[in-house]
Amino acid sequence: MVNKYWSDLVNRLEPYVPGEQPKQAALVKLNTNENPYGPSAKVIEAIREQAGDNLRLYPPPESDQLRRAIGDYYGVGIDEVFVGNGSDEVLAHCFQALLKHKKPVLFPDITYSFYPVYCGLYGIEYQTLPLTADFSIRVADYVGDNGGIIFPNPNAPTGCLLPLADIEWLLQKNTESVVVVDEAYIDFGGATSVGLVNAYHNLLVTQTLSKSRSLAGLRVGLAIGNSRLIEALNRVKNSFNSYPLDSLAIAGAVAAFADEEHFESTRSAIIRDRELLGTQLAERGFHVLPSAANFLFVRHLSMPGSALSAGLRQKGVLVRHFNRPRIENYLRITVGNPEQNRALVQALDQILV
Amino acid sequence: MVNKYWSDLVNRLEPYVPGEQPKQAALVKLNTNENPYGPSAKVIEAIREQAGDNLRLYPPPESDQLRRAIGDYYGVGIDEVFVGNGSDEVLAHCFQALLKHKKPVLFPDITYSFYPVYCGLYGIEYQTLPLTADFSIRVADYVGDNGGIIFPNPNAPTGCLLPLADIEWLLQKNTESVVVVDEAYIDFGGATSVGLVNAYHNLLVTQTLSKSRSLAGLRVGLAIGNSRLIEALNRVKNSFNSYPLDSLAIAGAVAAFADEEHFESTRSAIIRDRELLGTQLAERGFHVLPSAANFLFVRHLSMPGSALSAGLRQKGVLVRHFNRPRIENYLRITVGNPEQNRALVQALDQILV
Repeated sequence: MVNKYWSDLVNRLEPYVPGEQPKQAALVKLNTNENPYGPSAKVIEAIREQAGDNLRLYPPPESDQLRRAIGDYYGVGIDEVFVGNGSDEVLAHCFQALLKHKKPVLFPDITYSFYPVYCGLYGIEYQTLPLTADFSIRVADYVGDNGGIIFPNPNAPTGCLLPLADIEWLLQKNTESVVVVDEAYIDFGGATSVGLVNAYHNLLVTQTLSKSRSLAGLRVGLAIGNSRLIEALNRVKNSFNSYPLDSLAIAGAVAAFADEEHFESTRSAIIRDRELLGTQLAERGFHVLPSAANFLFVRHLSMPGSALSAGLRQKGVLVRHFNRPRIENYLRITVGNPEQNRALVQALDQILV
Repeated sequence: MVNKYWSDLVNRLEPYVPGEQPKQAALVKLNTNENPYGPSAKVIEAIREQAGDNLRLYPPPESDQLRRAIGDYYGVGIDEVFVGNGSDEVLAHCFQALLKHKKPVLFPDITYSFYPVYCGLYGIEYQTLPLTADFSIRVADYVGDNGGIIFPNPNAPTGCLLPLADIEWLLQKNTESVVVVDEAYIDFGGATSVGLVNAYHNLLVTQTLSKSRSLAGLRVGLAIGNSRLIEALNRVKNSFNSYPLDSLAIAGAVAAFADEEHFESTRSAIIRDRELLGTQLAERGFHVLPSAANFLFVRHLSMPGSALSAGLRQKGVLVRHFNRPRIENYLRITVGNPEQNRALVQALDQILV
């Protein structure tokens, strides 16, 4: 219904629908790719220390301390780092600042479903390019006139990884527009493109602390790229919200990058359990895509995705089902801790009898 | 310099410049209207309790618990409340969702300097209407064709309050567009317009926890209005960032609304000290505008604003000076605690000899 007080944009918008955040604690939650392990104890300590009288003061508007920590971690300068309120906010600024041009932005037909939503929000034309039959990105398809290119690596919801050599090949062919590599899941098995930003000034890499750093509740995302790209993001950010990161998020995120041991031990546990779970699902009649992420994208050879998803829910296990062409029979299942994974497999054994 | 990777928008943008956040702790910081008193001890406790393993999970995307707490506090329904990452983000969404129309949005010539920045960001036409000679808003000027109306109450940086009766008069005359009353400073002496939202479905009231709740470092803002206006804000929010408030901010903000005693004692101390400081400044040759905020807007009868601001800075006291027509000789001075206010007066006594 059209409302006279709404802008034309609002009357047209089709918002993104995030995975369910259930209010019952008893559910086995494998639907939003959260990390089954808590954040580093040092993160908790840093947040508790930061929580005090100084919350009366505004945070440092440019989050310098955090940007320096990230720059040091990845071997880039502070002016090559941008941070935001979750990588969703960072991506939104990318669309508005770097991907809005006369020509359409390109992304895969099966990918993070927020991309077309951003295009709707900012009035950006886009063109989707089909993944191959085995759900991989063929970079040659992206060469040619465009207003920008964006894809996750590994891709979501498939988990499939694009080799670094393919990304570099694309950057060599595509010099006139920005290429955004959305590395939300890169730490679970991929090689980051960050090392390419010095050579390719149109490459922007985004990451999040929500997955491999176990901090979805803290809302911190980042982008790394040439300082001129970062400047564009800063201009939009400073026209939208001067202080997107609160003092607690800054303190927690700095501590997260300082605890390499916690990071390594949790991500290797997830990688190990992903391989085990993949084998168990294959044994139960699932086609399992190769995953470099903290989730598996699977299709049962005889049972439809919607029925499986509903059956699992009845047994208290949440997974993500996308009712969309080409993937309507797939489920995206987060790799949980061993106990959660066992609960999933047991529930499947009851459903698939 | 035009950059081919930047969107046309970025090449045009003139971002907002926030007040300085100095890195030296020794300065007397009266330049960004922060509260001189820390937040409630219950807020700190709630944040420390929330800081734990559950930070691995996404926050509730609609911040239900906080919206209910705010609704209960103000006697409105949960669907009449919107929350965001600081009131700057809430205001940005208001401009995009409710103030972008074919006709220009109206606001005062002297007001919060982020308003024209939002217009630049979203391509919204605006028209400024001059404050009267004594710096008050004349609501009759706002009647007539427009795409929306927005002003702070009390106004910033003047501190001048508009009576509720004037706002209601304007709402009766202006029914075809949204009226946003930005109440960032309302708790320091004004009467909120929240009680009018049930009668006027085009009224949206915004507030922040950064000032009277001593939580600038936590980034929480809110809007209250008819559920159809809130729905418009939600549509934009859900097309931009599903989880704008982190779990710690939600927990802290809920606790802030539950500690009325802390709220009352700190705001009454500030109101009392504002009156004392106003008298002391008047005695030293300042013209002091009547203020209902946690700052004073003052002009010295013989010394220019820029010289005074620079002189105070040399003595370690930061105040805000806007180098803009009509107010270039004014200073906006945050009301600090008694010690900070004394330091300001002593520095002035040395400068004005």
